[in-house]
Amino acid sequence: MTQISPPDVRLHGYPVSNWFNCARAAMIEKGLGASFEPCRASRDEDFLALSAMGKIPWLETAAGGIAETVAILDYLEELQPEPPLLPADPFARAKVRQMVNIAQLYVEAPLRSLYPGVFMGASNSDEKRADAEATLARSIPALLRLAAFGPWLAGPALSQADLVLFYALELGDRVMLHEFGRSLSSAHAELERWQSSMRTRASTQVVLADFHPAFLTYLADRHAAWQEPDARISKNA
Amino acid sequence: MTQISPPDVRLHGYPVSNWFNCARAAMIEKGLGASFEPCRASRDEDFLALSAMGKIPWLETAAGGIAETVAILDYLEELQPEPPLLPADPFARAKVRQMVNIAQLYVEAPLRSLYPGVFMGASNSDEKRADAEATLARSIPALLRLAAFGPWLAGPALSQADLVLFYALELGDRVMLHEFGRSLSSAHAELERWQSSMRTRASTQVVLADFHPAFLTYLADRHAAWQEPDARISKNA
Repeated sequence: MTQISPPDVRLHGYPVSNWFNCARAAMIEKGLGASFEPCRASRDEDFLALSAMGKIPWLETAAGGIAETVAILDYLEELQPEPPLLPADPFARAKVRQMVNIAQLYVEAPLRSLYPGVFMGASNSDEKRADAEATLARSIPALLRLAAFGPWLAGPALSQADLVLFYALELGDRVMLHEFGRSLSSAHAELERWQSSMRTRASTQVVLADFHPAFLTYLADRHAAWQEPDARISKNA
Repeated sequence: MTQISPPDVRLHGYPVSNWFNCARAAMIEKGLGASFEPCRASRDEDFLALSAMGKIPWLETAAGGIAETVAILDYLEELQPEPPLLPADPFARAKVRQMVNIAQLYVEAPLRSLYPGVFMGASNSDEKRADAEATLARSIPALLRLAAFGPWLAGPALSQADLVLFYALELGDRVMLHEFGRSLSSAHAELERWQSSMRTRASTQVVLADFHPAFLTYLADRHAAWQEPDARISKNA
């Protein structure tokens, strides 16, 4: 496996995006640095050549751009195997990939479908809310069933599954509170304990320190229905 | 890497499912056999212990069950590396993973959101149709941009991306015809040529031979709006 030195990859994106934050946290965990190139999603032809869906994050490499965070995570794993974010045992690795896919497809995607009404100044239909709620009613129990919480989802070592789920819930629990008046994590003690552990990691602290101010600006720009608790307090003061 | 002999894994599922058909085709391509255990999706506790989302396919291994087809495909790759369904070069492999994720999240998922009104005797809202159409308007051009068609999506060797996209479009193009009166593949000559090449593969022929009769039964059971062209002809006869 060719080892590429850290300066040969560069992450492009924007610290409001949970996928950008997830990929950035993986780079920090692997000692590949916390720096990134600020960049917003775009549908310009030039940008689509780098990120075919026009989304962020994308990873700049000597060979070209890679987009889709799950593909970036696996590429980073090969680029810099230590510390691993996938277990060495093939079955254990498959179980991490199973959790990653459930988190992406059945947790993040339904919560994301409600971003417009919560974060973007638009509205969410009852059908969308009901669809998201029905999917989450299956996916959260599925993850609770699969997770070891030892203390990380796959056991004693942090994995891709922790990063994908943590950043998905970081925005997603705000969606839950706004749309359904309840938090997924506070409803499940294991999830809440795990989130607290995640927050103690140096990577999380770096990522969230950039997330918060960027998120407040984003919410204001979009005339979002959601207000951050701190922002609400300072407005009421 | 531990090599597990073929009898140690067994695929469980139902040949109407595009994900089951994709995983089965991968097993056939890798010489792991075409046999499977018939099994339907279920939300029973016993089944959830094997497949946490209650979905098919799931792969039985000596260590336990693995679900989520993308996780199964990667596990099969490690179990039986030859012939490979991922390129050896890390960047090329990342590009396959990028295509797989686009096919799963932005092609299969939006088309699947319309299965109820096409295959299941229910109906699709205008909002769902519009959402799916908007996502496909980005994802199909993204795949056309990323694909080499050489003749396979990643170049001269078949990859996971071919299997995921082929089986997604196999059901998905029926959805397109029913809901939008047009086929994705016939609108794009490269896609149509690639599909024709895919149909010549021995794995495809085995999988589709089981798909067709099972699908006709499924459609009849669900009082589906969609009728297969052959079924329509024989009804009119």
